[in-house]
Amino acid sequence: MEVSADGYAPLSVETLGARLGGLPDVADRIGGTPSEWQVREVGDGNLNLVFVVRGPAGTVIVKQALPYVRLVGDSWPLPLKRAFFEYHALTRQAARDPGRVPQIYHFDAVQALIVMEFLSPHTILRGKLIAGDHVAGLGEALGRFVARTAFRGSDLSMPTATRKADAALFLGNVELCDITEGLVFTDPYHDAPRNHHTPELAPVVAALRGDVAMKVQVQHMLARFASNAETMLHGDLHTGSVMCTGSETRVIDPEFAFYGPMGFDLGMLIANFLMAFFSQPAHRKPGEVDAYQTWILQVIGDLCAAFDAEFRHLWTTERTGMLYPAALFEDQGHGSDAALNDRLAIIWDDAMGFCGIEMHRRILSLAHNADFESITDTGLRARLEARSLTMGRDLILDRPADPATLIARARATHTKDIL
Amino acid sequence: MEVSADGYAPLSVETLGARLGGLPDVADRIGGTPSEWQVREVGDGNLNLVFVVRGPAGTVIVKQALPYVRLVGDSWPLPLKRAFFEYHALTRQAARDPGRVPQIYHFDAVQALIVMEFLSPHTILRGKLIAGDHVAGLGEALGRFVARTAFRGSDLSMPTATRKADAALFLGNVELCDITEGLVFTDPYHDAPRNHHTPELAPVVAALRGDVAMKVQVQHMLARFASNAETMLHGDLHTGSVMCTGSETRVIDPEFAFYGPMGFDLGMLIANFLMAFFSQPAHRKPGEVDAYQTWILQVIGDLCAAFDAEFRHLWTTERTGMLYPAALFEDQGHGSDAALNDRLAIIWDDAMGFCGIEMHRRILSLAHNADFESITDTGLRARLEARSLTMGRDLILDRPADPATLIARARATHTKDIL
Repeated sequence: MEVSADGYAPLSVETLGARLGGLPDVADRIGGTPSEWQVREVGDGNLNLVFVVRGPAGTVIVKQALPYVRLVGDSWPLPLKRAFFEYHALTRQAARDPGRVPQIYHFDAVQALIVMEFLSPHTILRGKLIAGDHVAGLGEALGRFVARTAFRGSDLSMPTATRKADAALFLGNVELCDITEGLVFTDPYHDAPRNHHTPELAPVVAALRGDVAMKVQVQHMLARFASNAETMLHGDLHTGSVMCTGSETRVIDPEFAFYGPMGFDLGMLIANFLMAFFSQPAHRKPGEVDAYQTWILQVIGDLCAAFDAEFRHLWTTERTGMLYPAALFEDQGHGSDAALNDRLAIIWDDAMGFCGIEMHRRILSLAHNADFESITDTGLRARLEARSLTMGRDLILDRPADPATLIARARATHTKDIL
Repeated sequence: MEVSADGYAPLSVETLGARLGGLPDVADRIGGTPSEWQVREVGDGNLNLVFVVRGPAGTVIVKQALPYVRLVGDSWPLPLKRAFFEYHALTRQAARDPGRVPQIYHFDAVQALIVMEFLSPHTILRGKLIAGDHVAGLGEALGRFVARTAFRGSDLSMPTATRKADAALFLGNVELCDITEGLVFTDPYHDAPRNHHTPELAPVVAALRGDVAMKVQVQHMLARFASNAETMLHGDLHTGSVMCTGSETRVIDPEFAFYGPMGFDLGMLIANFLMAFFSQPAHRKPGEVDAYQTWILQVIGDLCAAFDAEFRHLWTTERTGMLYPAALFEDQGHGSDAALNDRLAIIWDDAMGFCGIEMHRRILSLAHNADFESITDTGLRARLEARSLTMGRDLILDRPADPATLIARARATHTKDIL
């Protein structure tokens, strides 16, 4: 066991019981003695150690940051403080959308670990979308989560001094923002060393990297990502950061949290549903593809509708921040609907831009997703990925005006033979 | 002399020598002994104490923050830490546009005081514009200053980790941002307690406050002011923050510094020149008005041209930040002119919005400016102010595409009889 100067040491299945057994709050929840605990390492993400610890009284999750990117190894150092930001993001999300994120039992900044609620029988949403499972209320839950965290973390709701102090705190999460700035917004658009893509995609990739007008728009979105501190975002809200049962939806893993543009979480989420949509021909029997794709598009529609409805509701009921104050509108007998509609249009426009970019980076950059990556027939994979790349470009350059137009475009792109 | 718990005590003409005489760097510059120093309090701004200290070897300025807003009194507390932000802003501006801001000789965070270069024979630009003086190279100097500080304080130039850390630091300047958020963006548009305006303006003010579409745009600009941390701004760049001789231009007083949208300083500066333009009929003999107004408009043109030219130059020669990297453009044989033109268009559009708002708040909110306020004939004052208010509204709702259109609109508005 390597121990750093300040006492940090990564946990292992063997050491976890001895090291966490002395925490009364944690030990009580698990029950029995540490020697009775069953410990499994289940981390399948790109960055961290994740343990399931089971005992006579209950089960908890122990998530611990490593001082490097797990996916790459210790050649790519990454600071432990990301656990600090995940902890603070979870507490804010819990306050802004109660019950949607795991409950925290213990946080240790030096060990960069969080002991939290074990979600069961929840499984990762991405796996469900590959398996063809349905989740009741999925779009509604996610749309409400995104709207509530967006609105309640912004100058629409918070005292601006509080929002500014919190934005300053999260500006410290610079290394994780740097990952997004590089892997999402930059690497896909040139031949970066960390990139890889399905070989058959080469002509589509070349065309994409030669599209100057699109690259300009992508970099405009990077500027918005880096500078527009509108609200605290999850920062990595893809279908691998959502866990569900057949009827319950929870959001996990906000270690990329930062203050950024409201449309970012929404766009990234839609992108991951669209990639699930495009990947379906590889995962379903031919007769089952259409019905399941229709369900995925319905989830996108539900997500957008729930976001819109909840944001409008909060605008009316919780607009206590300095922006668009009632003193200038309602108190003067003037409506603020025009302002609300403009703000929603800006969020939507941003979301569509971020969506298109996420649809590129998951196919071209370092961190791919299982929707496509699990397709062993690379010819088929490339054909499906090509549709995602093409739609991504269309979204960046020609943002659909509304969710119905977005969904219609997804259906149309699905029928295109690009490769 | 009141002394706070941590040792802060405001200086006075009587105590300054004794209190600063022990600082070798300061004492050497002034020369002689403190008893020989001539001390005058010259602060005519809204917030601080300012002393001129003259001795055998030289003269220095001592600027000290008060724990309240000087213009209003101790009923409006304001933290001393604004001196800290002014100090840090001055060091950054000095690095980004060498020679344009006063040299700092001494900074004392506890006493909230900065000892700095005495600018002589410079006088405040606003006074010169009222007096009808000319300054050679004025627009060029200010345009270059705004371009250099905008570009070199942004993700176009700085390592983003440095920019983020600096943005986090300046998010602490929350009370001064709060002043701008209230006095500039909100108070003018409703009957706020701190407001006052020339009585004859009443019908124009009522129309303005009833203009819902305009108020929506103003609040959109407030959202951009508060969230878009593109670069470190001066934050209060009006003609009272500029000191000139007949041929040299210097920028002072950046205590409102914060990371915000690049167009803010540019827009506020243009607004103050436009208010000087509209006020001229009250300050010049009839036969002299047109020539001097033409010169003011020429300065605006020079300012915009210098900003544009310098920003383009820096884009080509110093684009070392993460945004619009050469790896995606020049290294691929692709131009980045489209991106540059888009960014300049965004800055200009923002500047025009901020410009219109500044032209309102200086007539309707707490802090007026001498261009109009020194006009004792309130009927004449109101007629001239009405043009400024009207042009402000037009700028907010219908942003001119370029400086030439802006200047033509100013000329046209000057001939309108609104009251």
